Amino acid sequence: MLKDIIQSALGNVKADLVLKNGKIIDVLNHRIVEGNVAVKDGVILGTGDYEGEREIDVKGAYIAPGFVDSHVHIESAMVTPSQYAKAVMPKGVTTVIADPHEIANVKGEDGLAFMIEDSKSSPLEVHFMLPSCVPATPFDHAGCVIDGEMTEELLKKYDFLGLGEMMNYPGVTACVPDVHKKLESAEYIDGHAPMIRGMGLNAYACGGIKNDHECSTADEALEKISKGFDIFVREGTGAKNLEELMKAVNPYNMRHFAFCTDDKHPAEVIREGTISHCIDKAVKLGYDPIDAYTMACYNSCVSYNLGRKGAIASGFDADIVVTRDINATQIEQVYKKGVLVAEKGKALFEVKGADTSKVENTVNIDEIKAEDLYMPFDKNKMVISLNEGSLITDGVYCESEEGLSLCANIERYHKTGNIGRCYVKGLDIANGAIAQTIGHDSHNISVIGSDSENMAAAVNALGKQGGIVVVSDKKVIAKMELAVGGIMSEKSVEEVVSEHEKIVEAAKTLSPSGSNETLMILGFISLLVIPHFKLGDKGVFDVDKFEYV
Amino acid sequence: MLKDIIQSALGNVKADLVLKNGKIIDVLNHRIVEGNVAVKDGVILGTGDYEGEREIDVKGAYIAPGFVDSHVHIESAMVTPSQYAKAVMPKGVTTVIADPHEIANVKGEDGLAFMIEDSKSSPLEVHFMLPSCVPATPFDHAGCVIDGEMTEELLKKYDFLGLGEMMNYPGVTACVPDVHKKLESAEYIDGHAPMIRGMGLNAYACGGIKNDHECSTADEALEKISKGFDIFVREGTGAKNLEELMKAVNPYNMRHFAFCTDDKHPAEVIREGTISHCIDKAVKLGYDPIDAYTMACYNSCVSYNLGRKGAIASGFDADIVVTRDINATQIEQVYKKGVLVAEKGKALFEVKGADTSKVENTVNIDEIKAEDLYMPFDKNKMVISLNEGSLITDGVYCESEEGLSLCANIERYHKTGNIGRCYVKGLDIANGAIAQTIGHDSHNISVIGSDSENMAAAVNALGKQGGIVVVSDKKVIAKMELAVGGIMSEKSVEEVVSEHEKIVEAAKTLSPSGSNETLMILGFISLLVIPHFKLGDKGVFDVDKFEYV
Repeated sequence: MLKDIIQSALGNVKADLVLKNGKIIDVLNHRIVEGNVAVKDGVILGTGDYEGEREIDVKGAYIAPGFVDSHVHIESAMVTPSQYAKAVMPKGVTTVIADPHEIANVKGEDGLAFMIEDSKSSPLEVHFMLPSCVPATPFDHAGCVIDGEMTEELLKKYDFLGLGEMMNYPGVTACVPDVHKKLESAEYIDGHAPMIRGMGLNAYACGGIKNDHECSTADEALEKISKGFDIFVREGTGAKNLEELMKAVNPYNMRHFAFCTDDKHPAEVIREGTISHCIDKAVKLGYDPIDAYTMACYNSCVSYNLGRKGAIASGFDADIVVTRDINATQIEQVYKKGVLVAEKGKALFEVKGADTSKVENTVNIDEIKAEDLYMPFDKNKMVISLNEGSLITDGVYCESEEGLSLCANIERYHKTGNIGRCYVKGLDIANGAIAQTIGHDSHNISVIGSDSENMAAAVNALGKQGGIVVVSDKKVIAKMELAVGGIMSEKSVEEVVSEHEKIVEAAKTLSPSGSNETLMILGFISLLVIPHFKLGDKGVFDVDKFEYV
Repeated sequence: MLKDIIQSALGNVKADLVLKNGKIIDVLNHRIVEGNVAVKDGVILGTGDYEGEREIDVKGAYIAPGFVDSHVHIESAMVTPSQYAKAVMPKGVTTVIADPHEIANVKGEDGLAFMIEDSKSSPLEVHFMLPSCVPATPFDHAGCVIDGEMTEELLKKYDFLGLGEMMNYPGVTACVPDVHKKLESAEYIDGHAPMIRGMGLNAYACGGIKNDHECSTADEALEKISKGFDIFVREGTGAKNLEELMKAVNPYNMRHFAFCTDDKHPAEVIREGTISHCIDKAVKLGYDPIDAYTMACYNSCVSYNLGRKGAIASGFDADIVVTRDINATQIEQVYKKGVLVAEKGKALFEVKGADTSKVENTVNIDEIKAEDLYMPFDKNKMVISLNEGSLITDGVYCESEEGLSLCANIERYHKTGNIGRCYVKGLDIANGAIAQTIGHDSHNISVIGSDSENMAAAVNALGKQGGIVVVSDKKVIAKMELAVGGIMSEKSVEEVVSEHEKIVEAAKTLSPSGSNETLMILGFISLLVIPHFKLGDKGVFDVDKFEYV
């Protein structure tokens, strides 16, 4: 009740909670103030000499606003939103802007509805963007299609914050009607415009796109700010832009920067956190800690117009982090709307999750035989050559199949029978195969192996649920089930990390050059928008020419 | 069409307009960039080497975003919104946030509907707030009452941006149900909290109030920012806070400051402009010009979430000011959504105005006789003592009526017959009177004179329409009609200023100490919230005790 809050703010009635003797990080005035913070009914009453039903002496710890991840694909952590919450809230994250692009490619509206419902079973505040590119390209064969008309319907039907990252720059600037229909249906549109500059960037901005998380240089970030974009500085598993982009930040334009992770592997989420890691890294690089907190807490609340959030200020949501050090590596307590949700690195809540029945059993293929995957080696056919530590691939020609592996991409939703095949250079798999149902962005089955028999064994072991399977000598030696859409588990992030470690150990036995990287390559070898040659369910795709070879 | 804009942004189709060779004020990156700005279909395409159907070489002039007045009572300029537009647009103002508090006190919903409709006949972008305090206090007898229930209805019925300045701090903190109903009905609420600090300010902020334009010290502004308020730096006729408040601005908190005028007399609007004057004054005081433009253009667009406005950036509204000097005193051209609306100080548009039939003839009293206004002098009755150059008054006791004037406040809407009377010290009116239908905030009739006969003559000459009348020796020597609610004219600001000058000249003949000040005092002597003693329609009011004497 407003009345209760106001009486409590006046000091006439005790607050629910008072955090005493803190160093309050004031992101509005860019200063640190010693004092007490009072909370009532989930709202910050303000600073002052308050009494509370519960009083906690934080003994000089920093009191900061809760952290906000401005752009994240939760699916990349391989867990459901509620399980994700248990992993990130102890690290200070209280709000995320999630783009459920992966599950939308697998299960369309059912996938989106699941994510929204599941997120409600944790205290993490999750704002969803409606994915704008399902499928990611016209050459993809994903589980679902969300066209312009359906975009309009879904925006009305669900409480989306806006349209998710518009990756289809060519579609925007070529004025493809269905793409423009999507742009015109949303007020807030996330951007994705790596290396787009000049007039092309002007045109993209005119499409109504408000932010960008794909900047890789400081100069690019500055141009984008002048053109009206907010810049989300990304520090994820694949892409780490913080060190470079912080060079562009000054006291005047800092308001236009925020932090995000985009995609972060569960092991890294557990090990280093997400947005807290951005703060830590920025501070270690010598940047102003209060800048870092302003970017971590307040700026994206303004960018997304989330209301009174992101600062320790009167009437704001009581999303609060108590951290012993300014680097946010020693977080002691995390409050969400005034409720203590994590302490000393542990979540204090349990999650129930949502009904998964509509997002399970997403693998819909007939049994695969070795001959379905077999392709005789032909020195005149292009081989995809991998580059260590990069998702960028080349196309080469080889004299023999020695040292090459066979790879296939199997359409898994509509029994089209589409199977793309190619040889791959850079991984030498011996008498075994690895198959998985994670394959950006359509998440068809990706399988790589020494031969088609091992590969068929791996694919068939995925079952209806999907996940990751490692086969050695035609026998399954490791299997991890990802029952939700073949891309997420309902288990905790810790369990998922532990299972994934076993998969990596097994993969290592197949290939000396293998390891975690093999799996990452498998996940991205079908992503038809990363140069130069990729494998789709119709064969090798020339990304630069944007057509199948 | 989005398609046309995008093709034009790409340079494939000519822009409508290109401003060439400008010094572009980039409020997003806090820098000045030399270049060209292209416009199509009312939208800024961006900067670059564009060709246009129309190309204008601005020869090194500054290209700035259009100015925004963050909080204004247009009625104080004594003209309708459309006429106001003709006065302020040549001075660079393209958007105002208007609080039609005065007309609402006179004519309630009809007054609001008139303001909204009338504003549509000019290119000025007027966003209206729904007045929250009609009447201003429980002791006022205004033309209309807008209670909590009606507030909810009006917010739904009209396109208000939110709730206008909540002046009723006591009502907010005493948790008066009707006041809280108003607070809970709006998402965005303007503030009005002069000198409120500490826990009281915390409580007021918790009411959902987002900004404040009543700060008088830098320290007060800093506290309010830390508590989540945006600060509108006011530079109007009565209150001039810019010089003091600019001391609080630093590069980090500058984002929370914007400019406003609140109340500005028409003569000053014409002479010095409104927001351009804030820029000029800030620059002359030695503050960073780009800070001034950011406060004048961009910050309140963010505060009010007005969308893509307030910067020279791609996809933003083409609200553009071309000024020869950085002080904005030599404005050459003003564009609203890409259309040239003013050049060299002259508006290039005509206005039709709205139908005034429902807001005319607002004076509803029987003929006033001298005895209605007469009050014998009594040395035991309090006299209101004026202070030169201030709206603050004192209560004193005098031995005789020598040097005093008689004053009355006449309820003018409901024929209640309420007439408050008192003697006033500080103005020595000889054989004459001045009456007017402007009297904050209820706008009952205020009349002051040497005797009740002259006063009755002045009041009766106001007629049904109202306005300002000066009587000498019982004869009207000057009259200015304010047909719209008795507070605004449909004439141009220039005509109103000219008429008002004649009123002032006439008033001067009555009192050597008179002049413009007499009229200002008359307008505010009934404002029951300014210390220490005022005159309402029920008599002398003790503002400090908040009760009639």
